[in-house]
Amino acid sequence: MAGSPATVKPTPILKDELDIVIPTIRNLDFLEMWRPFFQPYHLIIVQDGDPSKTIKVPEGFDYELYNRNDINRILGPKASCISFKDSACRCFGFMVSKKKYIYTIDDDCFVAKDPTGQQINALEQHIKNLLSPSTPHFFNTLYDPYREGADFVRGYPFSLREGVSTAISHGLWMNIPDYDAPTQLVKPLERNTRYVDAVMTIPKGTLFPMCGMNLAFNRELVGPALYFGLMGDGQPIGRYDDMWAGWCVKVICDHMGWGVKTGLPYIWHSKASNPFVNLKKEYKGIFWQEEIIPFFQSVKMSKEATTVQKCYIELSKEVKEKLGKVDPYFDKLADAMVTWIEAWDELNPSSAEKPAK
Amino acid sequence: MAGSPATVKPTPILKDELDIVIPTIRNLDFLEMWRPFFQPYHLIIVQDGDPSKTIKVPEGFDYELYNRNDINRILGPKASCISFKDSACRCFGFMVSKKKYIYTIDDDCFVAKDPTGQQINALEQHIKNLLSPSTPHFFNTLYDPYREGADFVRGYPFSLREGVSTAISHGLWMNIPDYDAPTQLVKPLERNTRYVDAVMTIPKGTLFPMCGMNLAFNRELVGPALYFGLMGDGQPIGRYDDMWAGWCVKVICDHMGWGVKTGLPYIWHSKASNPFVNLKKEYKGIFWQEEIIPFFQSVKMSKEATTVQKCYIELSKEVKEKLGKVDPYFDKLADAMVTWIEAWDELNPSSAEKPAK
Repeated sequence: MAGSPATVKPTPILKDELDIVIPTIRNLDFLEMWRPFFQPYHLIIVQDGDPSKTIKVPEGFDYELYNRNDINRILGPKASCISFKDSACRCFGFMVSKKKYIYTIDDDCFVAKDPTGQQINALEQHIKNLLSPSTPHFFNTLYDPYREGADFVRGYPFSLREGVSTAISHGLWMNIPDYDAPTQLVKPLERNTRYVDAVMTIPKGTLFPMCGMNLAFNRELVGPALYFGLMGDGQPIGRYDDMWAGWCVKVICDHMGWGVKTGLPYIWHSKASNPFVNLKKEYKGIFWQEEIIPFFQSVKMSKEATTVQKCYIELSKEVKEKLGKVDPYFDKLADAMVTWIEAWDELNPSSAEKPAK
Repeated sequence: MAGSPATVKPTPILKDELDIVIPTIRNLDFLEMWRPFFQPYHLIIVQDGDPSKTIKVPEGFDYELYNRNDINRILGPKASCISFKDSACRCFGFMVSKKKYIYTIDDDCFVAKDPTGQQINALEQHIKNLLSPSTPHFFNTLYDPYREGADFVRGYPFSLREGVSTAISHGLWMNIPDYDAPTQLVKPLERNTRYVDAVMTIPKGTLFPMCGMNLAFNRELVGPALYFGLMGDGQPIGRYDDMWAGWCVKVICDHMGWGVKTGLPYIWHSKASNPFVNLKKEYKGIFWQEEIIPFFQSVKMSKEATTVQKCYIELSKEVKEKLGKVDPYFDKLADAMVTWIEAWDELNPSSAEKPAK
């Protein structure tokens, strides 16, 4: 039975099955701090700004680095779907990876400590989350029933205890919480000091705000749904890249029968971004999300949508039809969603026609 | 803004607005341990077994006590809807209370300690939960946004930040977890030692296993939905009383637009009940719940169901029609659900035709 002490196994590190994707690295401390945890893995760094600048990666890391020139060279005209001067460009790294799992993290996120003072191995917890099932069809009041020391409680149907495959592991942040600009402005001093020792499945049919700061996923399962949209240079909006990906991937997971987990692991989010700059990036999104959320709450995929790619193309058509009315930006975004899938299939030919499990 | 340090107010104790309902008290330690927390409140004790036995209540408590003879006298023939020799009889206490809020707790539940070693005032946390709104329409990754030190995260629609009224506060248990008999048998030594410092809203459309050990609710809002069914003496099933109430109240809350919270506070659940006895009580339920859950997942109330009573009567008809096929027990239960509402309205005439807010 899951979680009994006799069956707890060490977490595999998935060395050859996981890439770490980082959008730019502006400070050298970042990789030094994560060295004991990240050095076994291959890094994919996607530089978000000026390609003439060089990023110094400390000795000992196995990495590949892409700047805008590389993205243009590899994708040709399809490079238009990858954001420029915005961390949304990280999704290019998801596309060029060949691994089963991805962990993506921002360069202002450091190693957090648990309440006992131990450094948290965030990647290890993400791997635990991804390798154990999710339970989107019924709520378990003791949280993740597959963790050591926990199980399904009385009244949990036995037919649902096998769970479903986990597609997403959404980790949280100590210190600077992930607030929008208005909340940052109103509560400039608020810090997240509450360590909540839980992992849980977000129920089927429920949307959530997915943050890209500390995020892992099963690329083989949902990679093509992890498109971070059109943000930054030349776009009317920023800071909605991860939200967009989260809404899309959640409705696709719900359709495909896969799970999304949130909670542990925590990272230490070191510094708040400028709320005034954020407000400029966000203000249209704050307005638009009031229409985007009801859209995603009601969107339905057809029975023909049997692969993530097919789901995503269906979604792009719905976006064009329903959100195109909100702003012409969504027309452009819907087109970019199609381009993204075309580019994904070009770089990942074997996944294009893979039937969903 | 909710949760900012400047606006944190002391929790009202609701002395004249809350009753504590306890189904029998088999050990005197129970009330002594809770004395500092419970003494300000009125207790309603509902004796589940032999009415000739007397329950000794220590000095200083303000209480009323009902045994089977009292229930029969007060309800007459309608007393048939109240279970005998089973803690499900506690719902009689919900019916005779005249207060706005109820806290119900089992007599094997003691005061738990938080990770700093402080005794947990469970009632205070339940009151916090009930007095702050719920957020069933969208998931907040930092859990209850109304707690001190927390808020809504980036990407949470502003139109949903007011939340909805909270109807239920479901607390958890340290030490002996609330497992079913099969899990108890397989994991006799498992103890819940994980203190998860979170309160969260169970999303709309998601069912959960509601445990009656440590439960508070807004009686004015959902009291008539908190029927604990037919269990114990003369019935083919036990240990599904709270589950039944939980499934009913969750679909009614979803229909009425109210919230259900789970998480804090913890109590210390002192001893595991006998798994062999439990198995005998549960085995039909374990089988039946495989049909009950899909039933509750698909049940819909009509637009005419504008009060909890009307919802509950509609539900009873659906139970008869859909679950009556599973076993004749559900026919009997559906009838008892109607009797329960009739008895509720008789004892609470002012609530009978109260329109829902």
